Amino acid sequence: MTELPIDQVRTLLAVVDEGTFDAAAAALHVTPSAVSQRIKTLEQRVGRVLLMRTKPVRPTESGQVVVRFARQLAALNEDARRELGIAGEPGPARLSIAVNADSLATWFLPAVTPVPRDPPVCFELYREDETRTAELLREGRVMAAVTSSPDPVAGCLVRPLGLARYLPAANPDFVARHRSGRLRRWLPGAPVIVFDQADELQDRFVRALSGVDAAEHRHHVPTSEGFRDAVAAGLGWGLVPEPQARPLLESGALVELEPGLHWDVPLYWQQWKLDVRALALVADTITAAAAEALHPLPS
Amino acid sequence: MTELPIDQVRTLLAVVDEGTFDAAAAALHVTPSAVSQRIKTLEQRVGRVLLMRTKPVRPTESGQVVVRFARQLAALNEDARRELGIAGEPGPARLSIAVNADSLATWFLPAVTPVPRDPPVCFELYREDETRTAELLREGRVMAAVTSSPDPVAGCLVRPLGLARYLPAANPDFVARHRSGRLRRWLPGAPVIVFDQADELQDRFVRALSGVDAAEHRHHVPTSEGFRDAVAAGLGWGLVPEPQARPLLESGALVELEPGLHWDVPLYWQQWKLDVRALALVADTITAAAAEALHPLPS
Repeated sequence: MTELPIDQVRTLLAVVDEGTFDAAAAALHVTPSAVSQRIKTLEQRVGRVLLMRTKPVRPTESGQVVVRFARQLAALNEDARRELGIAGEPGPARLSIAVNADSLATWFLPAVTPVPRDPPVCFELYREDETRTAELLREGRVMAAVTSSPDPVAGCLVRPLGLARYLPAANPDFVARHRSGRLRRWLPGAPVIVFDQADELQDRFVRALSGVDAAEHRHHVPTSEGFRDAVAAGLGWGLVPEPQARPLLESGALVELEPGLHWDVPLYWQQWKLDVRALALVADTITAAAAEALHPLPS
Repeated sequence: MTELPIDQVRTLLAVVDEGTFDAAAAALHVTPSAVSQRIKTLEQRVGRVLLMRTKPVRPTESGQVVVRFARQLAALNEDARRELGIAGEPGPARLSIAVNADSLATWFLPAVTPVPRDPPVCFELYREDETRTAELLREGRVMAAVTSSPDPVAGCLVRPLGLARYLPAANPDFVARHRSGRLRRWLPGAPVIVFDQADELQDRFVRALSGVDAAEHRHHVPTSEGFRDAVAAGLGWGLVPEPQARPLLESGALVELEPGLHWDVPLYWQQWKLDVRALALVADTITAAAAEALHPLPS
């Protein structure tokens, strides 16, 4: 690829972030036709369409590469200015990180909140299924992700975090009402809680156990704590993150469907290969906290 | 509009739900070219483009009207079959509801979990900002929503729920570090937690108080409990839902920025004007629970 003119790259980023050519023009203090001209010139130079002209506009696959490049450039520039002390009022470093909901609800937040305030850091957290966080990294929306995929996204490095353990559990009355014979016989017919339409955790577990999907009688409860509460209230069974399940098992609000049986999801940290100080600091903090909170990955 | 052929309408719904023509063809057990032909015929009949051929495909504004029609049709059909007892194995009624995160984390789930199991109901909950839940209703993605908008979506009826109260709060050390003079002077400069990019609650509050936006030094923490935990950990101040703030105020983990000062968000229930039994039952349960949990709306 020939060298990309910085103003055109920044314009593309502004259009993606603002959603329309008009909004990008306002943000950049130029006319909409200047924005449109820059994007056209950039597309001609790259030889690819970079934006789908939807509402809001969305980057094509090639556009995503340029967006990621633009964000990395901005992060490096910001970091250099801060280290050189030439930024009048540098403002805090922005760290955009995609995290799966269960990590966010258990070990992630306590890990990052003590991150030192000097240099100041702003967290921009995105909540996504662990199978889709890598997608946000690929699109250039975030600079790091907690993901279930060990395959590095282009331009990213991977560090293992550990195994997140889930316990198949339900309310004791629910179990009394639905249990008949062996778990693998009755579980596929019992009402189930899933996180959202993309959540396949329960289905994968039941397939491993019984060779079929979980019941069609299912509730979608798209928050981690809500999921746990819905299981405890007896709406259905579900795979509850171990740290959330423990206190409820002890109080008797939940019972394990089969003591000792669990489902582990490997988690990895993926981040841009960039020498940005704040990002390195956070990566170290997070991998250390994960080593404490998660089960070790088989080596 | 001339009468819409049911098979074409159902095909459109399948394409929107499955995301691609190929997946819809597989779900409907027909060829992809049959799917494509039906959509084209429907578009000619309506005289409008109904689908944007993106990946995944998305309904246009006209397409959304047809999608909503298709879902209402399916719900009515299901309800009639259940009442007539002609559904071999009727399966539970699916209720898709969009709820804002803070309601989901506080009063909503305890309200719906005791909904009787007879007739059996499946909840399909969507988590969205209260300013955007009405959009899901408009798009036909959900049949009901907890929303901040009292303006009825086309084809929907509105019932008031109450005022959700938010308390401006922070960790006591945070306040000691940032307070100087009056709240309206120091608050716009202090680090703030917001839910996500669309969350304007904190900005609206600071604008009402000081005439400017909240600080650019902001963290995005996109879960209700994570938001509360980030405020309690001292990452920034934030507007914490009253039921979540109370125990932390009592334990001293949080302090109110100005005792007595709060921000109220009116909430409404909007739902399809449809005589579906399960929906009516849930609507009654939810409005009764909201009347208990929320503050009364000024009449």
